[in-house]
Amino acid sequence: MSQYWSKLVHSLTPYVPGEQPKSKNMIKLNTNENPYPPSPKSLQAIHEAANEGLRLYPDPNSDLLKQSIAHYYTLEAKQIFVGNGSDEVLAHIFQALLKHDAPLLFPDISYSFYPVYCGLYGIDYKNIPLNNNFEIDINDYNQANGGIIFPNPNAPTGIGLALESIEILLQQNPSSVVVIDEAYIDFGGVSAVPLINTYPNLLVVQTLSKSRSLAGLRVGFAMGHPDLIQALVRVKDSFNSYPLGKPATQGATAAINDKTYFLDICARIIATREKLTLQLEELGFEVLPSQANFVFAQHPKHRALTLAQALRDNHIIVRHFKAARIDNYLRITVGTDAESEQFIQSLTDIISSMA
Amino acid sequence: MSQYWSKLVHSLTPYVPGEQPKSKNMIKLNTNENPYPPSPKSLQAIHEAANEGLRLYPDPNSDLLKQSIAHYYTLEAKQIFVGNGSDEVLAHIFQALLKHDAPLLFPDISYSFYPVYCGLYGIDYKNIPLNNNFEIDINDYNQANGGIIFPNPNAPTGIGLALESIEILLQQNPSSVVVIDEAYIDFGGVSAVPLINTYPNLLVVQTLSKSRSLAGLRVGFAMGHPDLIQALVRVKDSFNSYPLGKPATQGATAAINDKTYFLDICARIIATREKLTLQLEELGFEVLPSQANFVFAQHPKHRALTLAQALRDNHIIVRHFKAARIDNYLRITVGTDAESEQFIQSLTDIISSMA
Repeated sequence: MSQYWSKLVHSLTPYVPGEQPKSKNMIKLNTNENPYPPSPKSLQAIHEAANEGLRLYPDPNSDLLKQSIAHYYTLEAKQIFVGNGSDEVLAHIFQALLKHDAPLLFPDISYSFYPVYCGLYGIDYKNIPLNNNFEIDINDYNQANGGIIFPNPNAPTGIGLALESIEILLQQNPSSVVVIDEAYIDFGGVSAVPLINTYPNLLVVQTLSKSRSLAGLRVGFAMGHPDLIQALVRVKDSFNSYPLGKPATQGATAAINDKTYFLDICARIIATREKLTLQLEELGFEVLPSQANFVFAQHPKHRALTLAQALRDNHIIVRHFKAARIDNYLRITVGTDAESEQFIQSLTDIISSMA
Repeated sequence: MSQYWSKLVHSLTPYVPGEQPKSKNMIKLNTNENPYPPSPKSLQAIHEAANEGLRLYPDPNSDLLKQSIAHYYTLEAKQIFVGNGSDEVLAHIFQALLKHDAPLLFPDISYSFYPVYCGLYGIDYKNIPLNNNFEIDINDYNQANGGIIFPNPNAPTGIGLALESIEILLQQNPSSVVVIDEAYIDFGGVSAVPLINTYPNLLVVQTLSKSRSLAGLRVGFAMGHPDLIQALVRVKDSFNSYPLGKPATQGATAAINDKTYFLDICARIIATREKLTLQLEELGFEVLPSQANFVFAQHPKHRALTLAQALRDNHIIVRHFKAARIDNYLRITVGTDAESEQFIQSLTDIISSMA
């Protein structure tokens, strides 16, 4: 607290990210990182960016990266906005497109950064409860609103929403921007990108932190009608002319272009997830059906927090949220097959010792 | 314009950065970049960061970099805030520390991003005219205010303010945050950092884009009392948990640690600036006394815009601002000795042809 702080700073409740332990001796299944390395072509591109050209400012518009994303998704570059991780992209979206008189709607169980952005920009919002199966029911969003946002697949549940439902939502809310946060879409969900040319109120957000294994590089993007993109550009150009440095732009571009590697590691993660789900069910867990690179599970006889602490004693970190409705669940990132086996072995031992 | 835009987006007047030409055949003296490459140790560190560890999120607090900056300036890490270029750091400062009931004060001729930030965050501000010598007169700031900010040396004039004047300003404004934007301090100015432990209202901002030749990497930082830093952390943690990726943090840390290389290139730029100033004066220019890596000059007989266009025809880009009081000046970045000679030769030819 300080007399020098603006009123806003006093009122903020900042987001708390998952732990990044400084010890290397941990199996890290807590922040939904990819267990496989980035594309070798991406690493090579970052190497090549580390040259004397770094003395110069980067392209403020990151045209190279926008063109690659546009090509990947058969869109035009003017339908793409890029930023310093999808968190920055989301921040600009909240300020530019989701602040209106009517409240913003998002699920009660969802990415916990959303209410933080609302606090940062003074946006009125309303939580819409997931149904009893932890699913988004689009009928619940049929009310006055200044925008709608949710992850698809949702986090931390992992449950996906069908494209047909998203299309109905877009039709029912022609005056609102509907933001589909597709951080985890590449692990089995169906992207809303093909709807972009039909619905001027659709904005799709993606990140390179998960499926492209580049959490340490910080690149995310949004796709939608050029009018929506223009709003984001106006905010970005009033905040930071150059959000992406050359290593980020060049590494991200190479990662987007290396589709073969990307599809391969996504397929491996999906296969490990399906095996992990069965193994957890054999241990008595209830596992929500996941289309993401994590599973969300609870055990009818054991408290999630107790299990998380016991796993940590065995050098395995998973994520536990203290929020209502989900405080007995664990969110477990899908690791390599070897990490997954070691996790299941530890968990089996822990549960046996508690029986 | 779009029905989906927030009210704010309609009202913004974004910043327009200097041109980054895509052609390589230009002598680029328009955006105050360093003519020398980054420290080889910095490039090596970025190479080393391009490894499989990029699959993991970076340290959200960039502790490694904060410790290096703290060590360099004999401060504590809790007195350091780091961000994605000093533009992002400044944006957070405006939102966190400069929005109060009384207007923010800054010079009429100054970094033209300041009024843009005010627009982004709804901050009331008042321009204080530089005196007739284009200097900041601290007596002009002796009025009710919600904060004071200016670059030192000032941009685009290059004129520095004495440390004694900054100290009087801090004493005269104990209830306001005074931000000294030291983007160009390493080219001959006197830093206000030694005042930080005495004045809890002082915040000093620096960047690695100029004196460390890392404009393409995007790293900046602020230094001040831990209460001020805490306000910035609260905003950052409500905006983007991880503003700096691993290549940025590691490259910046190595650059800060390589003091020998840094001092050498700064000395070379200062020497070239002094020679350039004399050469411009010989051509009849009035050159403001610069402590930066650029000079600000006007010719009594030739229009700045005409000269800039003629230089461009010769593949040399300098910056011209259309603002009042300075629209007949050129801002010329100090290049290498060879670039500087070529610039003077071109300018000599242009002026001869106009005589």
